Amino acid sequence: MERIYTKNLKENTGKEVKIAGFVDIRRDHGKLIFIDLRDMDGLVQMVALPNHKEAHEIAQKLRPEWVIEVEGIVNERPEKMINPDLETGTIEIEITGIKVLSEAQELPFDKDTELNLDTYLNHLPLTLRDEKKRAIFKVQANIIQGFREFLIKDNFTEIQVPKIVGEDAEGGANSFELEYFKHKAYLAQSPQFYKQIMVGVFERVFTTTSVYRAEKHSTTRHLNEYTSLDFEFGFIKDHEDIMAMQNRLLVFMVNKLKENCSKEFKILEATIPEVSEKIPQMKLKEAQELIKKETGEDCTKELDLEPQHERWLCDYAKEKLDSEFIFITHYPTAKRPMYTYEDENDLGYTKSFDLLFRGVEITTGGQRIHNYEKLVEAIKKKGFDPEKFSFYLQAFKYGMPSHGGIGMGLERLTAKMLGLENIKEATLFPRDLNRIDNLLSQ
Amino acid sequence: MERIYTKNLKENTGKEVKIAGFVDIRRDHGKLIFIDLRDMDGLVQMVALPNHKEAHEIAQKLRPEWVIEVEGIVNERPEKMINPDLETGTIEIEITGIKVLSEAQELPFDKDTELNLDTYLNHLPLTLRDEKKRAIFKVQANIIQGFREFLIKDNFTEIQVPKIVGEDAEGGANSFELEYFKHKAYLAQSPQFYKQIMVGVFERVFTTTSVYRAEKHSTTRHLNEYTSLDFEFGFIKDHEDIMAMQNRLLVFMVNKLKENCSKEFKILEATIPEVSEKIPQMKLKEAQELIKKETGEDCTKELDLEPQHERWLCDYAKEKLDSEFIFITHYPTAKRPMYTYEDENDLGYTKSFDLLFRGVEITTGGQRIHNYEKLVEAIKKKGFDPEKFSFYLQAFKYGMPSHGGIGMGLERLTAKMLGLENIKEATLFPRDLNRIDNLLSQ
Repeated sequence: MERIYTKNLKENTGKEVKIAGFVDIRRDHGKLIFIDLRDMDGLVQMVALPNHKEAHEIAQKLRPEWVIEVEGIVNERPEKMINPDLETGTIEIEITGIKVLSEAQELPFDKDTELNLDTYLNHLPLTLRDEKKRAIFKVQANIIQGFREFLIKDNFTEIQVPKIVGEDAEGGANSFELEYFKHKAYLAQSPQFYKQIMVGVFERVFTTTSVYRAEKHSTTRHLNEYTSLDFEFGFIKDHEDIMAMQNRLLVFMVNKLKENCSKEFKILEATIPEVSEKIPQMKLKEAQELIKKETGEDCTKELDLEPQHERWLCDYAKEKLDSEFIFITHYPTAKRPMYTYEDENDLGYTKSFDLLFRGVEITTGGQRIHNYEKLVEAIKKKGFDPEKFSFYLQAFKYGMPSHGGIGMGLERLTAKMLGLENIKEATLFPRDLNRIDNLLSQ
Repeated sequence: MERIYTKNLKENTGKEVKIAGFVDIRRDHGKLIFIDLRDMDGLVQMVALPNHKEAHEIAQKLRPEWVIEVEGIVNERPEKMINPDLETGTIEIEITGIKVLSEAQELPFDKDTELNLDTYLNHLPLTLRDEKKRAIFKVQANIIQGFREFLIKDNFTEIQVPKIVGEDAEGGANSFELEYFKHKAYLAQSPQFYKQIMVGVFERVFTTTSVYRAEKHSTTRHLNEYTSLDFEFGFIKDHEDIMAMQNRLLVFMVNKLKENCSKEFKILEATIPEVSEKIPQMKLKEAQELIKKETGEDCTKELDLEPQHERWLCDYAKEKLDSEFIFITHYPTAKRPMYTYEDENDLGYTKSFDLLFRGVEITTGGQRIHNYEKLVEAIKKKGFDPEKFSFYLQAFKYGMPSHGGIGMGLERLTAKMLGLENIKEATLFPRDLNRIDNLLSQ
């Protein structure tokens, strides 16, 4: 008999089937032994009865996480036994045979115990085997795939970029240092230089890549290694073209989640956001004036938004502008990287933006300087030596169209979409100040 | 007027259009100035005539790689001027207006100069702007996308894996070392541990990720940083299931290349391989006996294949078995990583395989040990301390089905598909012993 998945059981009601997976829970009622079997993307309740003697004996020995293969009959459940919360809640498997494929040692804690974050992270190979955790990473897979799909359809070419770099796009602070055959090298903080270079080659490019920040603080929204979703394209009018592209991208991504992940959002009690055709936007200065006017708090002298102001703006956008997303534009040149394009009509401010969603920034983007002389000047102004960026600068020396793009952290976006409190819950194997899988000894 | 791409010009014959891109070549015949304009994925010949005075004057100043926007009329070429090698070879743009968007400095060499590899690599931001180079990386994008598409359709879940690791799956030799907040860490040589752990969660997983090898030798087929295409899945009979999956995957990938990249293969004068429904296979021992019998060279005592023997086997498979691909199975346990499954019926040999294609190994794969005690034993046998792998080992302690998978280097596969001599040509920004973009000073 060919093995089938639990998601295909219902269409086999009344028939004998073979399924396989992990023992999720076992409830021994003596004569009746109930076993929940978990497979690739579902779960089904099975029952071992004494009349199938051999199977019943094996069922007595089974423990959580044992891997088994089961033959049985798909029975409809009586009306009052139907479980509406379970996809297979209208059926039950009457076990006729069990084969143990792999045993498991006793678990360090019951599977339904509430764990603190460290215990959860210490046992990821086990704790990820959970309906809710699986739902998180199914959604994450769909987010990254939605990102790629939209861009491929819109004539973007995927590129692979290096993570070992000589000089860093963001200036080198907070970089992990590495010994590279007796030379100093760094882990890239972003794919910025490479995607810009590739605009000169393909005009429209994207990449999904790991990036590294050696930040020493540990918060619920930072990681030291994360996945960055980046696109960059040329022949733009200004940053508005980038924002419009990101807007369309988000509409597409959210539609894909609606199509593929409504089950997962339900499991996680989260709501898929609506994205309007035109996400509202305001300049940083306007946002600061608004905050001052509405809350009395004066942040108009600050060069960036404080976390509480990002939260306030998101609340404002939701209540007054009917949008869970809001673009804040025109951050000062002083707070943006050297390659950021200064607005000719608003000197000192840049054609850059952040996209805020549910209280935090999920995207940073903008137009970049494409004129060689201006870029060299901007590098000097930030106190760097243009000579160190000579490789990158070739792209501009030999002709570059106007261009820009965005970077978006996959884990943060996943966490915000799903209402997770800590970004580490949206990262399979998070790296932080104190942890590479195991806690680092001090 | 809205800008259109050169690939859409033909359908606009007779009309006025706006296009934009880079000056690829300019030929000044005095009255007639011919300019080839290169955009996202094409090229078109344009002509500036003296009757459009302003445009003609600008055309005189243009130089290679200047970025321009052009208005003009799409004319059919006279029969004898048709260029069959060019997609737009039946048309020509009569320029009515030119706007310079960005100038370029004089190029360090003519665009059609044959460059040695170092000069090519020193100038990648410029040298990648070439029809052939673009074709290589278009094909590469389609290879990685084909890999993902097939697996998504076959119920695999995409996962993001860390590159900063504490202990390495392959045992730690040839790892780049890194300072991680005063602790020692390494760059991952493969996503092996994480994809195996995730088989316990999703049963079928894949990842496309960067991996690192601190190998000190510089060859035409090795890189220090490359992209690994990995899948892993559970509930297998043995390694034959993995090989069958890889076989189907290759059929799919090659069909996608036929659909999307025939133009690129033509440009590169390369042939898309045929993949049979059942790729031929032989055991290492059988392969060695065959080599001995056919060539007289005795390699039967060796634990692995030498490069020349891999080449010989590929030639043999092509001539005698009508296949450009051949699986070699049953490498000795001594030559395979600790997690490799030993064949119960062929002790000392493993249920592992390499896939050879056009002279080299493009895939390594096999069944893995899924029994906890056996895996601990195998780790000790290789001289490692199981305690160091305690995080990974949890996956097996708490129940694991039989499973296996493969890893496939994207750059090597790209190079072999396209018949490129050096793998660095199939890598956008290759890292080697002497180079991170620029040559490293000694």
